[in-house]
Amino acid sequence: MAANAESNNVDDGLTLQMVRDSLIRQEDTIVFSLIERARFPFNSPTYHPSYGSVPGFCGSVVELFVKQTEAVQATAGRFENPEEHPFFPDNLPPSLVPHYKYPEVLHPAAMSININKAVWDMYFNKLLPLFVAPGDDGNYASTAARDLECLQALSRRIHYGKLVAEVKFRDEQKDYEPPIRARDRDTLLSLLTFADVEEAVKKRVAKKAMTFGQDLKLGDGGEKGKYKVDPAVVSGLYGDWVIPLTKEVEIEYLLRRLD
Amino acid sequence: MAANAESNNVDDGLTLQMVRDSLIRQEDTIVFSLIERARFPFNSPTYHPSYGSVPGFCGSVVELFVKQTEAVQATAGRFENPEEHPFFPDNLPPSLVPHYKYPEVLHPAAMSININKAVWDMYFNKLLPLFVAPGDDGNYASTAARDLECLQALSRRIHYGKLVAEVKFRDEQKDYEPPIRARDRDTLLSLLTFADVEEAVKKRVAKKAMTFGQDLKLGDGGEKGKYKVDPAVVSGLYGDWVIPLTKEVEIEYLLRRLD
Repeated sequence: MAANAESNNVDDGLTLQMVRDSLIRQEDTIVFSLIERARFPFNSPTYHPSYGSVPGFCGSVVELFVKQTEAVQATAGRFENPEEHPFFPDNLPPSLVPHYKYPEVLHPAAMSININKAVWDMYFNKLLPLFVAPGDDGNYASTAARDLECLQALSRRIHYGKLVAEVKFRDEQKDYEPPIRARDRDTLLSLLTFADVEEAVKKRVAKKAMTFGQDLKLGDGGEKGKYKVDPAVVSGLYGDWVIPLTKEVEIEYLLRRLD
Repeated sequence: MAANAESNNVDDGLTLQMVRDSLIRQEDTIVFSLIERARFPFNSPTYHPSYGSVPGFCGSVVELFVKQTEAVQATAGRFENPEEHPFFPDNLPPSLVPHYKYPEVLHPAAMSININKAVWDMYFNKLLPLFVAPGDDGNYASTAARDLECLQALSRRIHYGKLVAEVKFRDEQKDYEPPIRARDRDTLLSLLTFADVEEAVKKRVAKKAMTFGQDLKLGDGGEKGKYKVDPAVVSGLYGDWVIPLTKEVEIEYLLRRLD
């Protein structure tokens, strides 16, 4: 227990307030990214499995785009930050910028957790059809760029579950240790679930969708009831996918926390 | 005059209302992109002329990042859209996605106008130090990605001057032709200037910075007077740079409009 109690008091800057503030700030980023994707219609050629004519690459425009853009971002050091997770982690080029020493707050096992396959599937197969208009305006590159912004914002938020779990673990170590040792996912899930907090988050993101997605005019408060992204879709996104997927990350992290 | 009168009535879908709506919508994109850049501190290593260690490339992380990302976007067809202008137009790879037929509303000479050097200079040397906090948090790739979003949003808005000029030219062709033929920039500038409209735009973008940049909470209207990007900086950005640079594009376009 001595080692655990010690790690419990490390002065690495991680606080519950910091984690909360980041989660709240990330909501704005997610809502902005959805509003910006909704500027473009569905643009189905972006997603056709063989629309592009790229020698040696089999996939859609968006797959090629995300893969290549992640490679560029990797050379600029994006994935050195433990909060960032690539969608195509295989064969990423190394960073060409000098190493920055990010604070080490997570258990090293955190590095092995990446549920971006689930984030990708959720975004393209469930969320996207709910908030973009049908149609084709030719802007496939801009569409893919906006999709990447949404994907990265959602991925960052969901994988932030590692930090949420770490801070909760430190606060209530004696509650978490038995179910971790027993690999009891149900108990961990109930320890991680606060229904009233989740309801407040869903209400707040809906309010952000209303506030940031209104057609703002001078002199009045904007056209009531007309938003660039339906607030109900944003609160549903959180309730149905962001919160559950975050908990999945939290549980995966906790199960490795005592390794 | 017959040919001109004819071109005056082309049914290509360009209307003053459409141009206005696009300009207003683009304000939201610009404000969002500034707020998102302000998530990160200045992060000066992003801009150091020789910070990265890239064989065969001499420049800053952000230059390399923008150049490489534009290449990826070019393969996905971004610059096929006449509203998009690259910052590094030399040696861009060809689009690998099938050609989309964008409506041809502009005079072909529009293609030769690209003032992104001025946009780049304004953004990095004037605007950026006004709205980001000092400091270094290591997120150079994310910083460069956010810079690119700001640059592209500002570039699109400023080069939209081509469409603004085209729609104004069609509306008031007899007023515009004499100064175009005389290459009289001053008269063109005064024809293009509506001080009351400009004041309204500056007020509206400040209001957007307040509305989109507040810390939104449930139950109240957010903390008054505390915004992620200073609204005065956003209205100054429009008054000092976006509006004047747009007019520069408009004048360059008009001077070629009768070629």
